[in-house]
Amino acid sequence: MTTDPLRLGIAGLGTVGVGVLKILRDQADLIAARAGRPVTVTAVSARNRDTDRGVAIDGFDWEDDPVVLAARDDIDLFVELMGGADGPAKAATEAAIAAGKDVVTANKAMLAHNGHALAEAAEAAGRVIRFEAAVAGGIPVIKALTEGLAANRIERVMGVMNGTCNYILTRMQATEQGYNALFDEAAKLGYLEADPNLDVGGIDAGHKLSLLAAIAYGTRVDFDNVELEGIQAVTLEDIRQAADMGYRIKLLGVAQMSGRGLEQRMQPCLVPAASPLGQLEGGTNMVVIEGDAVGQIVLRGAGAGAGPTASAVLGDVIDIARGFRVSTFGQPAADLRKARPARAAVPAPYYVRLSLLDKPGALAKVATVLGDNGISIDRMRQYDHAATTAPVLIVTHRTTRSALDEAVAGMAETGVVQGDPVVLRIEEV
Amino acid sequence: MTTDPLRLGIAGLGTVGVGVLKILRDQADLIAARAGRPVTVTAVSARNRDTDRGVAIDGFDWEDDPVVLAARDDIDLFVELMGGADGPAKAATEAAIAAGKDVVTANKAMLAHNGHALAEAAEAAGRVIRFEAAVAGGIPVIKALTEGLAANRIERVMGVMNGTCNYILTRMQATEQGYNALFDEAAKLGYLEADPNLDVGGIDAGHKLSLLAAIAYGTRVDFDNVELEGIQAVTLEDIRQAADMGYRIKLLGVAQMSGRGLEQRMQPCLVPAASPLGQLEGGTNMVVIEGDAVGQIVLRGAGAGAGPTASAVLGDVIDIARGFRVSTFGQPAADLRKARPARAAVPAPYYVRLSLLDKPGALAKVATVLGDNGISIDRMRQYDHAATTAPVLIVTHRTTRSALDEAVAGMAETGVVQGDPVVLRIEEV
Repeated sequence: MTTDPLRLGIAGLGTVGVGVLKILRDQADLIAARAGRPVTVTAVSARNRDTDRGVAIDGFDWEDDPVVLAARDDIDLFVELMGGADGPAKAATEAAIAAGKDVVTANKAMLAHNGHALAEAAEAAGRVIRFEAAVAGGIPVIKALTEGLAANRIERVMGVMNGTCNYILTRMQATEQGYNALFDEAAKLGYLEADPNLDVGGIDAGHKLSLLAAIAYGTRVDFDNVELEGIQAVTLEDIRQAADMGYRIKLLGVAQMSGRGLEQRMQPCLVPAASPLGQLEGGTNMVVIEGDAVGQIVLRGAGAGAGPTASAVLGDVIDIARGFRVSTFGQPAADLRKARPARAAVPAPYYVRLSLLDKPGALAKVATVLGDNGISIDRMRQYDHAATTAPVLIVTHRTTRSALDEAVAGMAETGVVQGDPVVLRIEEV
Repeated sequence: MTTDPLRLGIAGLGTVGVGVLKILRDQADLIAARAGRPVTVTAVSARNRDTDRGVAIDGFDWEDDPVVLAARDDIDLFVELMGGADGPAKAATEAAIAAGKDVVTANKAMLAHNGHALAEAAEAAGRVIRFEAAVAGGIPVIKALTEGLAANRIERVMGVMNGTCNYILTRMQATEQGYNALFDEAAKLGYLEADPNLDVGGIDAGHKLSLLAAIAYGTRVDFDNVELEGIQAVTLEDIRQAADMGYRIKLLGVAQMSGRGLEQRMQPCLVPAASPLGQLEGGTNMVVIEGDAVGQIVLRGAGAGAGPTASAVLGDVIDIARGFRVSTFGQPAADLRKARPARAAVPAPYYVRLSLLDKPGALAKVATVLGDNGISIDRMRQYDHAATTAPVLIVTHRTTRSALDEAVAGMAETGVVQGDPVVLRIEEV
């Protein structure tokens, strides 16, 4: 093993990049002791050289162009912290690989969209790409899934992986305010991305799920087939009703392989209030991995922020300094299969809320439609008629989403249901 | 990277050893794909060749002597699953290292007592010892602490790491039965070691804590300085009172470095009922790692059983097959410092339960003794006198254990307290 310094080039000096520089400055001895060699920074790149970042960068070479930085002869490892699915992040990552550098990145969008091609390029060049920081911030979940649990056939991977969404949902329940008010609160606190749809639309969390699925099932990253549903349509009424029945609503990502193919869902789900996922409040992240040998493993921690994300970046850096080399998605890219996408193939109980018109036999008609579609009812509640409609809550026994969709279409034809029913999956955890 | 098979010699074919053989048989392709090379078994050793284990072993060479097995020319990696601090396990591990083999073990007792010497021997020979399965079963906590969180100065490591104790304590609360009844139940269910004191005396969990502390703080394993207190003295009364105040009693291990030195405690503690540790029921394990950058990471999963433990063993095996090499305790053994042991140096609130004699001014005397020792009271409750004594519960503000011990000694001198007060630390999590 070499004891020469591992020389980094870091592109992107936002919150995470600055966090990485601070840890490298403050914990240099600790990191050298653990890595078996010093970890140093040779050069950096960012949009603006003169921003006050609270950390001195004049000891490092400066590059205006991250692509030039990535290919410098005097760096061993390129740390990509710019973000963005394409553009400079991708160009610089490709340049680093072409120049024979290993890469550590926090960029979930780039890997969700280009991960397979980048993994192929890296492996052809004998280089590694590591991305612990791209999924669930400081939680070492990529490591757990790729390495620690590598002897398991993975049965299900689930996660609450967008802290902003979990913040909004748990605050809705705690404060009895609606989605819009809490969205505004999250915006004021700076919890939202520049494009908030990345958060509340489930896209950011969907990127992460697609990376976990690739590792878990040995398949090519397939973000395009993640079923995406954001939290914008979650109402206070549903949060209340769910709580009343012992559930919490979470934006939950689930990746599961069945005989029908690979299912990747990112959608609001009900989970038992007493489960680890149900108990998760605020901006914290949680990933649940179920393996045939290990059973259920739950990992919980901060999903964002300078410290946690920098911790994950540097965990990868120290691995590389120690000489660890593992394929990007845990197997050689050439061996990753193209997964057949399956939509909600795994049956589950569902929560259905609808507005029933005040007509004779209305409830019976709804129940009949469910029965005709092979769906049996676990629990049903009808409340007082407010004006002309009455809220009705139904929890079904396990059924497929397609049977339920047909039942919902059938309900519309009965003429006793006003508007579209709310349908939420109950994930059994 | 070689693609030659990694050839194992496995000593010990109890539950875990058989679990390992079954996974290697059933998931050979998956493991080869992930490891980048086949993982095969060359030879095995156990006490009795003819036991029916539910898995065929006639395809492997048999060795009566694990020491001979460990040194065979045709194995690359010795898997030690016999158990025991010394004796054959240690002799075979030493033989394996001397013969240039890497070692994977699930043996917490051996490492707690001989880990430093074994680590030195392995590093002198250029070999690695990995022991994920020795701590918290299937949870990849050694990996998280050694690798994923390697950029963190660790502030505290805590864990509920003996499922049997947690089973007994949570069943005491659920069934309102006392310790002895639940001890008998656990024995009937086969949850107890042959020497039950290993479980209920906290020794097994203490072994695990000493290994976590060594990695976390870069210190030599120091099991002798783990403060050990088992669960035998935990009463139903304390469990009820703790619950009533919003706490749960757990056998909690805590390792923490302060200016005074390294503190390693394994003892019944109160933790908030709403915290992840407080919510942990039954035989499940949980480890909480707090780092300066990452904040709090919580890992939860099965702490025992064939599948989870075999999953951890094979995670280590796959790491070695992939060419990962890390020092036993995360840093070269020669760099590990001898820690100065500290006893309960970190202040905490405490729970105190005592029996107050029915004498005038009795409560005032107890309160005065606490005040004289600089201890302020957060909450106090006195109940009706049953016959001649009244139960009194006190929750103190943060104080040191030494101040509290002096106060308790002072209480005895007042003549108003019957018997020894129960004193339990409240760990703030």
